Amino acid sequence: MKIPGKCAVAFRVFALGALLAFGSPIRAQTDPLPSWNDGAAKKAIVDFVQATTTRGSPKFVEPAERIATFDQDGTLWVEHPIYTQLMFVLDRVPAVVKAKPELGKVEPFKTVMSGNRAAIGKLSESDLIKLLAATSTGMSVEMFRSEAKKWFAEAKDARWKRPYTDLTYLPMQEVLKYLRANDYKTYIVTGGGQDFVRTFAEATYGIPPEQVVGSAGGTRYGYGKDGKPFLTKEPKLLLNDNNAGKPESIHLMIGRRPGMAVGNSTGDRQMLEYTKAGDGARLSMIVLHDDAKREYAYGPAQGLANTRVGTFPQALYNQAVKQGWVVISMKSDWNRIFAFE
Amino acid sequence: MKIPGKCAVAFRVFALGALLAFGSPIRAQTDPLPSWNDGAAKKAIVDFVQATTTRGSPKFVEPAERIATFDQDGTLWVEHPIYTQLMFVLDRVPAVVKAKPELGKVEPFKTVMSGNRAAIGKLSESDLIKLLAATSTGMSVEMFRSEAKKWFAEAKDARWKRPYTDLTYLPMQEVLKYLRANDYKTYIVTGGGQDFVRTFAEATYGIPPEQVVGSAGGTRYGYGKDGKPFLTKEPKLLLNDNNAGKPESIHLMIGRRPGMAVGNSTGDRQMLEYTKAGDGARLSMIVLHDDAKREYAYGPAQGLANTRVGTFPQALYNQAVKQGWVVISMKSDWNRIFAFE
Repeated sequence: MKIPGKCAVAFRVFALGALLAFGSPIRAQTDPLPSWNDGAAKKAIVDFVQATTTRGSPKFVEPAERIATFDQDGTLWVEHPIYTQLMFVLDRVPAVVKAKPELGKVEPFKTVMSGNRAAIGKLSESDLIKLLAATSTGMSVEMFRSEAKKWFAEAKDARWKRPYTDLTYLPMQEVLKYLRANDYKTYIVTGGGQDFVRTFAEATYGIPPEQVVGSAGGTRYGYGKDGKPFLTKEPKLLLNDNNAGKPESIHLMIGRRPGMAVGNSTGDRQMLEYTKAGDGARLSMIVLHDDAKREYAYGPAQGLANTRVGTFPQALYNQAVKQGWVVISMKSDWNRIFAFE
Repeated sequence: MKIPGKCAVAFRVFALGALLAFGSPIRAQTDPLPSWNDGAAKKAIVDFVQATTTRGSPKFVEPAERIATFDQDGTLWVEHPIYTQLMFVLDRVPAVVKAKPELGKVEPFKTVMSGNRAAIGKLSESDLIKLLAATSTGMSVEMFRSEAKKWFAEAKDARWKRPYTDLTYLPMQEVLKYLRANDYKTYIVTGGGQDFVRTFAEATYGIPPEQVVGSAGGTRYGYGKDGKPFLTKEPKLLLNDNNAGKPESIHLMIGRRPGMAVGNSTGDRQMLEYTKAGDGARLSMIVLHDDAKREYAYGPAQGLANTRVGTFPQALYNQAVKQGWVVISMKSDWNRIFAFE
């Protein structure tokens, strides 16, 4: 159909008016998840929120009971090739060795001080725990917070040359906001250090300290020279928030089974199982890192060796399919990965 | 002045109109704390809330950072002469002994089964911990919750012949609501069992499970015969939420120093110190049980021996005065104690 001159303008104006007046109200709403491509993953999120928040729905959940839990490393932000917290710990070692020079002569400090990346990459888990303890034990919790904030303000990741807090996934930020707009309380449930993640979670994700559940060392209450009480970080590991530790910590810190959980590795398996096994509407999702170009490709059938980051073996993929967890493909489901792109 | 007939009616109508039109806007507002007598304690609460929630006030606190923590036993509800949770444990012993008859032949189960109140009153703390462990270890967290709910629905306290959840202090309920109306997050921080208090805190105080911090045993993640995952209560004590354990647990579970804290015994001392020692406006309050007629009188100079409940020695009273904690006198500050009165 060819419409000439003025008439075309009038037609366009009419069409626009008709669209505004009669267009589907759902289409007319702003898409809460614009960085997500249409597909099973996006649909699962929207369906879950609608089912649990629409009064009268058989799967309606009272606002007070709406809990969603998110792993952090590899789920909300980049974890490859090395956890951000490990970078923080390694960067702190020189100051610790300077204060206690005898440490520089023993392992694992000697290796870290050598700057030999390959050797550092081969440090054992018990070495890393030693480094973690040495770089925080005896600090007041306020001092630790201030040191971590200082580090985040300066440190940059090697690939994107940006502050680590820029490396959060935009599609996940949208999910967090969408859930909160629907009265969900959003929690981080991370194998990373609770105190570490709390230093940036509020500014970065809008998640307050009390909604960050993570691996946690003990603290000790005592008094300063001025008589003022303060808490000191202790070497004792109180909560190991990986694997079974995730649902155990969710019970301890939240006391409700989440309605929705998102993870990306074997460390999240139990949280995803536990969430999915509850009554009513439950959504467990797992992020597949299959985008070597825009981020990284690792996990099942990606051919990239897992290094120090969360592993996602084929068996976990099979369990996801079997138990009805929704797999999020970074490559197919996300049209943008970072806000800065 | 005597005003005759119709004129008197007109005068009253005028006076009412004048009051409505010109009355102080503060007086005209509904008093959020009607069970509190005017006095230093009530004034301290209102002043604190106004100072921290009025934009432009030098002590203004952002809504996200407004945290208030309350001890439970003796602060929010009656603790004398025996903690409610201890009654729950004692009431559960017969069922445990029935399931495992050999326990009935050993202490402390033998004493509990004898029904000898005096002997039960003398059980040591380690005996009580044994009873606590025996009456919950191996139960799923859901089973524990359901047993506790069942018990609360039937159990009545000996003095008032009412469900224990009726024995909360009305003035404190008003403070909780007043704080929440001003965007404070209200937390219970109790030496009592976290799982136990979570079973009724939401219905009784409007405090959701994730805002109940208490002494906590570990849980163990496992699978049922149907393959479904669940959490089982373990005998291991993870958090002892008394004394220094209170600020330590506040850091673990909340991650912020409270702006306001209320307690009633030595077990709350460190929480009150820690709260008061923060910057800006801080309010620490301590409840003095000095009303033998309407509730109980115990603590400093009351002459009533402390039994199994929180102790409030003279030294704590002196510290309260010295550090500027506000002492709440049940007798003088509260015009009603219970909602059912």
